[in-house]
Amino acid sequence: MRVNMEKFVVALLGVIGLTWTFSTATQVGLADKVLVFPYETDFSFVALTPQKEMSLKAFTLCMRVATELPEERQIILFAYRTADYDELNVWRERDGRVSFYMSGDGAFFHLPPITTFRSSLCLTWESRTGLAAFWVEGKRSTYQVYKPGHTIRPKGTIILGQDPDKHLGGLEAVQSFVGEVTDLNMWDFVLSRSMIQAWHYGHKVPKGNIFDWATIEYALNGNVMVVDDD
Amino acid sequence: MRVNMEKFVVALLGVIGLTWTFSTATQVGLADKVLVFPYETDFSFVALTPQKEMSLKAFTLCMRVATELPEERQIILFAYRTADYDELNVWRERDGRVSFYMSGDGAFFHLPPITTFRSSLCLTWESRTGLAAFWVEGKRSTYQVYKPGHTIRPKGTIILGQDPDKHLGGLEAVQSFVGEVTDLNMWDFVLSRSMIQAWHYGHKVPKGNIFDWATIEYALNGNVMVVDDD
Amino acid sequence: MRVNMEKFVVALLGVIGLTWTFSTATQVGLADKVLVFPYETDFSFVALTPQKEMSLKAFTLCMRVATELPEERQIILFAYRTADYDELNVWRERDGRVSFYMSGDGAFFHLPPITTFRSSLCLTWESRTGLAAFWVEGKRSTYQVYKPGHTIRPKGTIILGQDPDKHLGGLEAVQSFVGEVTDLNMWDFVLSRSMIQAWHYGHKVPKGNIFDWATIEYALNGNVMVVDDD
Repeated sequence: MRVNMEKFVVALLGVIGLTWTFSTATQVGLADKVLVFPYETDFSFVALTPQKEMSLKAFTLCMRVATELPEERQIILFAYRTADYDELNVWRERDGRVSFYMSGDGAFFHLPPITTFRSSLCLTWESRTGLAAFWVEGKRSTYQVYKPGHTIRPKGTIILGQDPDKHLGGLEAVQSFVGEVTDLNMWDFVLSRSMIQAWHYGHKVPKGNIFDWATIEYALNGNVMVVDDD
Repeated sequence: MRVNMEKFVVALLGVIGLTWTFSTATQVGLADKVLVFPYETDFSFVALTPQKEMSLKAFTLCMRVATELPEERQIILFAYRTADYDELNVWRERDGRVSFYMSGDGAFFHLPPITTFRSSLCLTWESRTGLAAFWVEGKRSTYQVYKPGHTIRPKGTIILGQDPDKHLGGLEAVQSFVGEVTDLNMWDFVLSRSMIQAWHYGHKVPKGNIFDWATIEYALNGNVMVVDDD
Repeated sequence: MRVNMEKFVVALLGVIGLTWTFSTATQVGLADKVLVFPYETDFSFVALTPQKEMSLKAFTLCMRVATELPEERQIILFAYRTADYDELNVWRERDGRVSFYMSGDGAFFHLPPITTFRSSLCLTWESRTGLAAFWVEGKRSTYQVYKPGHTIRPKGTIILGQDPDKHLGGLEAVQSFVGEVTDLNMWDFVLSRSMIQAWHYGHKVPKGNIFDWATIEYALNGNVMVVDDD
């Protein structure tokens, strides 16, 4: 197992708005790699650069994720933030529910627990109807109607491992992600059930046009390892 | 994803007996469609018109159902009421058991939880023996003997989403259904194990002669969505 | 669905020893039938007549069983008693473990719960080594060593549904079986893993030489139903 560990320089957060100063150069492509967040920190994260502007009326976000964190621990799974808003944050809540937030109150779902075994997790949302659902191991949750008509704003910052918005830019260890993430992909439309199941089983699907794990642009910060997936 | 949302005019309940004034015209056929009850309300429901009189000495009722509601929340799953009696009500109880009631005390079953993922749920009952069972994912529960000799009375009202009988006709949000229902079918006889398993797996079975989802007559009330099943 | 319900005359228990006066004649054969114990009683049971003397240095006991009783409820699953001893009693204990007792202290096993859905359950024991195991759905539990050298005594009474030995012959409703039993078979030797799995899947296996469900001699007492298995 080859390991590529990046040591850390703290990210500076502007007092007004949000300015990340990345400690490491951007790298490209994580095919057959896993991001390992080995410890609870308030400084380890991975910044992601999207392939296109994040002005979104619909999306599908998929990833494979595993954690040893206890069930009652809050965990940030994905964070996309513009200057004033959490545009799209995905959480495992303290009560075990999985949730997402777009600029305000969230939508909460009762899903099977995220455990030490890798879960395949997708989230779909469409502005026209507001229909939102999580997909676990290719199985769809009950639909919820969440923010019909809303648009996700572009030109923000996307990070894995930390929630950047609490208390004017501070990162909190007790919300950080500890565990593994791999195969993160994002599309600017809602994938069909058969496509999501194909992705779950590792079959060929249309490449993510926002994030494609094989060609993803990323920058490691703090203590995050890139490990062969075997 | 096409969505057909019907806005609402409140249902009037007569002080004596039960008179529904439906806000919407009756529609026909829900093949490949799902009913989505997105919020907790005391006014959203779907009225169903049976193909034949509901004078029943036996029945099989099947549906696919999913909910995000917490485990300790009471949920009405099916309600058939005549003027003075709950002829056939199916509930998820506060203690998690699934139950049904015909004109009085109910029968309670310990089943796997009804979750955010779709469950296939059938209920069979036969008057001659009183044998009653639920079937989850094609597997039969233990038989219970419930009201041998009883007959379900005809000429009532069948609704999904609300329990129409509490407190002189009032609907209660805390009992309402939130989630998805699809593929509801009902027969005036007890289907065999192999037929119920065939239905569970989506294979061809004799069409429901009380309700057949593909040709069901229904009227939407309040905030209920008809969504493509994909 | 044909049902054969037997109404009840109470069983008389001698003050010294144990004398059953059965209310019904012995019947033969339960192929494709299920015994349904619909209510908690202190008087419903089925007496079984073995094909050969129950002097046993080894055995395999198999049955399919389902119950609606709550997890913390003690349940008698099989009782074989001679005048002074519980020769072979099988229990679901209050703590959820499954156990068996031969003339004294028992052996306790952590098995998957016995639920409303039918479980296939076997028990094997051999005197020479004392090796004892339960088999659930064809999968063996960890072996325990229990009473090596012991012999089960003959000329007792075998019943399903009640435990006959508490408090000088009294039957207790709180220990009674409620639910379904079918396909009970017993051999005077230890079946191989492949044979037990074959039995589990309903394939052909050597007929039980103590009990063979298809030709079993039984007498119904109290409220026990014989129902077609479909």
